Amino acid sequence: MNLMLLRTDEMAADGRARLDGARARHVREVLGLLPGDTLRIGLLDGPVGTGTVHAMSDACVELACTFAAETPPRPRVDLLLALPRPKVLKRLWAQLAALGVGRVILTNAARVERTYFATHVLDPAFYEPLLIEGLQQAQDTRLPAVEIHRLFKPLVEDQLGPACEGELRLLAHPGAPGRIDASVAAAAPARVLLAVGPEGGWVPFELDLLQAHGFHPVALGPRTLRTDTACLALLALVQEALR
Amino acid sequence: MNLMLLRTDEMAADGRARLDGARARHVREVLGLLPGDTLRIGLLDGPVGTGTVHAMSDACVELACTFAAETPPRPRVDLLLALPRPKVLKRLWAQLAALGVGRVILTNAARVERTYFATHVLDPAFYEPLLIEGLQQAQDTRLPAVEIHRLFKPLVEDQLGPACEGELRLLAHPGAPGRIDASVAAAAPARVLLAVGPEGGWVPFELDLLQAHGFHPVALGPRTLRTDTACLALLALVQEALR
Repeated sequence: MNLMLLRTDEMAADGRARLDGARARHVREVLGLLPGDTLRIGLLDGPVGTGTVHAMSDACVELACTFAAETPPRPRVDLLLALPRPKVLKRLWAQLAALGVGRVILTNAARVERTYFATHVLDPAFYEPLLIEGLQQAQDTRLPAVEIHRLFKPLVEDQLGPACEGELRLLAHPGAPGRIDASVAAAAPARVLLAVGPEGGWVPFELDLLQAHGFHPVALGPRTLRTDTACLALLALVQEALR
Repeated sequence: MNLMLLRTDEMAADGRARLDGARARHVREVLGLLPGDTLRIGLLDGPVGTGTVHAMSDACVELACTFAAETPPRPRVDLLLALPRPKVLKRLWAQLAALGVGRVILTNAARVERTYFATHVLDPAFYEPLLIEGLQQAQDTRLPAVEIHRLFKPLVEDQLGPACEGELRLLAHPGAPGRIDASVAAAAPARVLLAVGPEGGWVPFELDLLQAHGFHPVALGPRTLRTDTACLALLALVQEALR
């Protein structure tokens, strides 16, 4: 944990926050802090700042908190991801938040098994702590917005619609001629929406619909990657192109 | 599995290979193949090819194999990685092989815990199947060479020594001014050796020694990533720059 995230409702009016449980243990035992010591903190979806240990007991740590004036910007990449197997998605949550995504839009697709939608891995009570873990690793405060769509066509046609001004849409598809390279940087998009298909790939109908809605097909090299590896590789390339 | 790997010693003189166990089940049950059907195969560290199901029983599948003339080139990236926690390394093996690395050079470093060297995750009997899983996913045949070094200084000074002609050495270090970008592509290196530090980073002595041996510091963006996420992101960027 490189930055400890607090929620607004944990902050008292005097700028103090009282931690218990795992976070109090982290301050005491992992960081080994004593009263007067400081640590990097952040307000979930708010600014980063500094916490000074004001008081501590066996069960509880009280921090005096000061925050920067500005909230960090939301990551400029959004991910449209065909719902992966629960085991894969479980591993992905923290890594997506660490690499930095604004929105995670999970969708059905022809090659997504319907049973995947029944998993507890899609329960906010399950994934929010993992997203927060990733943010605390990456020293970010902006919690990715998560959406789950069981119908692909209405999602693309009605919710996504045509690309906004300044939005670049990329469609990861093995063998596509496009690449995530200097052309992405040159386009200087305000935001990038990256679509990543299911393990067996998008079917032609899905590819056509996405392209009709402004998605440009891009590919990594000739190697076929697992969804989670591909997601991380693609996000890393987009993030680097946007720097 | 997008390509089934066979070992040379599994090939009979007549070009037939007899599969049993998990691979026979995969052919019968996952791929649902019948005699006369074909599948993509590869010879470990050899060429890719086609296997035609010649005969099958409950326990065993016999393939008639033909191979391409050429063995695919070894991936042009090597990884020098401070030994991560066993749990992290366990997750990394297949993904490293899938993304493509020529050599995985695992090393001690000041911030590597000594106990990490005692893990079964460093046993070839444990990691080779995971590397093969990654190759079968990525449709590659070139098994990464794995080396384990308990002494950092002799590794860098004596084994790595100065960079070879055509070798580009990169040192991932948060906050470094360098980037993995068009300059890597422009250098058109024959090979890239990428050094990735332990969870807490390299210490100054290690940074100095690596730079004295030709490693150029590079960083991803401002986000602090877990070793495994960073490894995959960095490898993806290097691979893409080399395309």
